[in-house]
Amino acid sequence: MSEVVLPDKQVRRGVRGKPIVLVVMDGLGGLPHPLTGLTELESSHVPHMDALAARSSLGMTVMVREGITPGSGPGHLSLFGYDPTRYVIGRGVLSALGVGVDLDVGDVAARLNLATFDSDGRVTDRRAGRPTDADAARVVALVQGALRAPEGIEVTLVPEKEHRVVLHLRGKRLGGAALSDSDPLDTGRMALPIEAHDEESRPTAEIVSGIMEQARRILAAEPSMNGFLARGFAAFECVPSLDERFGLRGAVFAKYPMYRGVARLVGMEVPGVPVSTEDTVSVLEQNWGGHDLYFLHFKDTDTKGHDGDFDGKVTAIEEIDSLIPRITALEPEVIIITGDHSTPTALKEHSWHHVPALMASPWSRPTGHEFGESACRAGDLGVIHATDLLSLALAHTGRLVKYGA
Amino acid sequence: MSEVVLPDKQVRRGVRGKPIVLVVMDGLGGLPHPLTGLTELESSHVPHMDALAARSSLGMTVMVREGITPGSGPGHLSLFGYDPTRYVIGRGVLSALGVGVDLDVGDVAARLNLATFDSDGRVTDRRAGRPTDADAARVVALVQGALRAPEGIEVTLVPEKEHRVVLHLRGKRLGGAALSDSDPLDTGRMALPIEAHDEESRPTAEIVSGIMEQARRILAAEPSMNGFLARGFAAFECVPSLDERFGLRGAVFAKYPMYRGVARLVGMEVPGVPVSTEDTVSVLEQNWGGHDLYFLHFKDTDTKGHDGDFDGKVTAIEEIDSLIPRITALEPEVIIITGDHSTPTALKEHSWHHVPALMASPWSRPTGHEFGESACRAGDLGVIHATDLLSLALAHTGRLVKYGA
Repeated sequence: MSEVVLPDKQVRRGVRGKPIVLVVMDGLGGLPHPLTGLTELESSHVPHMDALAARSSLGMTVMVREGITPGSGPGHLSLFGYDPTRYVIGRGVLSALGVGVDLDVGDVAARLNLATFDSDGRVTDRRAGRPTDADAARVVALVQGALRAPEGIEVTLVPEKEHRVVLHLRGKRLGGAALSDSDPLDTGRMALPIEAHDEESRPTAEIVSGIMEQARRILAAEPSMNGFLARGFAAFECVPSLDERFGLRGAVFAKYPMYRGVARLVGMEVPGVPVSTEDTVSVLEQNWGGHDLYFLHFKDTDTKGHDGDFDGKVTAIEEIDSLIPRITALEPEVIIITGDHSTPTALKEHSWHHVPALMASPWSRPTGHEFGESACRAGDLGVIHATDLLSLALAHTGRLVKYGA
Repeated sequence: MSEVVLPDKQVRRGVRGKPIVLVVMDGLGGLPHPLTGLTELESSHVPHMDALAARSSLGMTVMVREGITPGSGPGHLSLFGYDPTRYVIGRGVLSALGVGVDLDVGDVAARLNLATFDSDGRVTDRRAGRPTDADAARVVALVQGALRAPEGIEVTLVPEKEHRVVLHLRGKRLGGAALSDSDPLDTGRMALPIEAHDEESRPTAEIVSGIMEQARRILAAEPSMNGFLARGFAAFECVPSLDERFGLRGAVFAKYPMYRGVARLVGMEVPGVPVSTEDTVSVLEQNWGGHDLYFLHFKDTDTKGHDGDFDGKVTAIEEIDSLIPRITALEPEVIIITGDHSTPTALKEHSWHHVPALMASPWSRPTGHEFGESACRAGDLGVIHATDLLSLALAHTGRLVKYGA
């Protein structure tokens, strides 16, 4: 009596189904405005999404687990049908995706801290006095310029924020990323040697240790930022792709590299890189056909949420709404509109709140004429896990066979 | 930190509680009529179910997983409190139940294909040119008539559809059903030997191999249907019974053998076999008392759904409604009315859509006066897994003890 993996086991193989469009408004979910009791989405004038709602099954989604605030990586994995508690992306890879590194399968990434070492090599400040972004960028450029990369290996350092830096390695001679951290997690101690946990990762350990030594020499004259501590080594690994799991050839349309990165992790292609909100739909139009799942990512909703700008988030939602007719004109069988998490302007941060979701399909059970948290709460889907949206889209496009006779 | 199995662990043992009636309208869930926006159930005049709804907790159920369309076997297992991804019924057993074989515990069943073999014994057509049902029945009768069953073993062949045949074996000398398939899954190859995966299944392997050889000889003169390929061997096994798991003695009232079969799989008794919708309640009345769970199965709702006959499904629902007063007159403590899956007439097939459910009980939290998808969506239970209906019925009849102090 073994457990059956669903929906994977029921996927109809070798047949191309009708297209699915997944529209993600980053950080869509919100909290009520104190004066009106309406959320950002409910305060928006979205005639096109409302029209879609009238032929949609609506619901609210849990992105990871109740009470858990997702980062963008896990939030999107859920929307792609991958439970982020099962498919864990390494920290270094997430950081690299976050600063916009275009990762390839096999690339290795890690989180570096600029740190202060004394003349004996002991760590005196694990964050090098929290330098300004500009100061850190200057020092990182210094290292990047003077570093002699090992033969056949590309080494890239990308400043993140203050003392945080991302290390990105690429090359055929690279090994695995099962490496120990060099951060001793305390001052007064030497940096720990970077050791390989398996045979495959030995070349990587050697390469990284060499880079760390070079950086110490290049930065020897710096008063505080005179070396790095490394942690969270991770390889950009192939998880089972959307095609392997669900028979879906996916394509991503996203201005920001982080979202293209997470999409590529599950095997989506990048037919083009949009330069704006509007251009996201233009690139979609130019590349329509040949894929099964079209993932569109819109960032401004989240940005305005972080800014605490209620009206700005409303405007961002309304701009996306104005593009919906161009998406429906392509006649996808199923359109999902949702977010990867909530970013209520009242909180100015990602939050754990359920995210409204709309699934327009000929086989939906509509319950209203509005897209918003209240309408979704009363919707046919109830409160479901975000990974189930993809299962439902597969069902609505006839891609799943019956379970049992 | 071991996992606690609930509700099983909390079942009050050795005490007989008040009776539960489970009314299953097969394929109950529907989709809105394009002109009215109302589903089949919502379009039905069901005064008795509506009256029950007014003293019921209402909810929507997920039968297997979101997006997964259940067959009748898995759908019913869920309603009996058995997660069908954990309790997987073998293919042969499901097929045998599906063609109406009355299986006993220990019986072995398999799916056979009528196939074409060349003079060297190589498979040239795995489906024997997809014969008509009549042609296949003729050949199956030929084999059944000439076959010499091994001592103490009953061998029954039942035509299913076209090339599909069910093999049913019964007898004390039978062993287990851990057998490999003989279907090579390709033409130009010999049938594979049927091998036992464990010691217990060796006698079965020998018996089945003998039957396959006899069939080849009996059919030697047939031009295309001159042998069988076998797969999906499965024994009708005792899963832990309703009595073992929940302390429930169950009884099934179902006209069609498939549903009696699934009920018997979990240990239900068959006090009598109804000959019609109305007779289902008559047989219940004649056998009231002595059981804890009375399962009534009504098929017509599903049949009309498959026919795409919206009005017919409405009529079928209304006919069942007219019988409800005879059920309530028996004064069960809890009445559940639901379906084993949706069969929307718009789809003419089973579907993945949530199924409306009603639980009439003195301890319910009523939310309305109507039984339908919209009312159930707004009901007290929310969207729950169908297996939870049984847990709730146990709770409502005082059969579960408090968890922890």
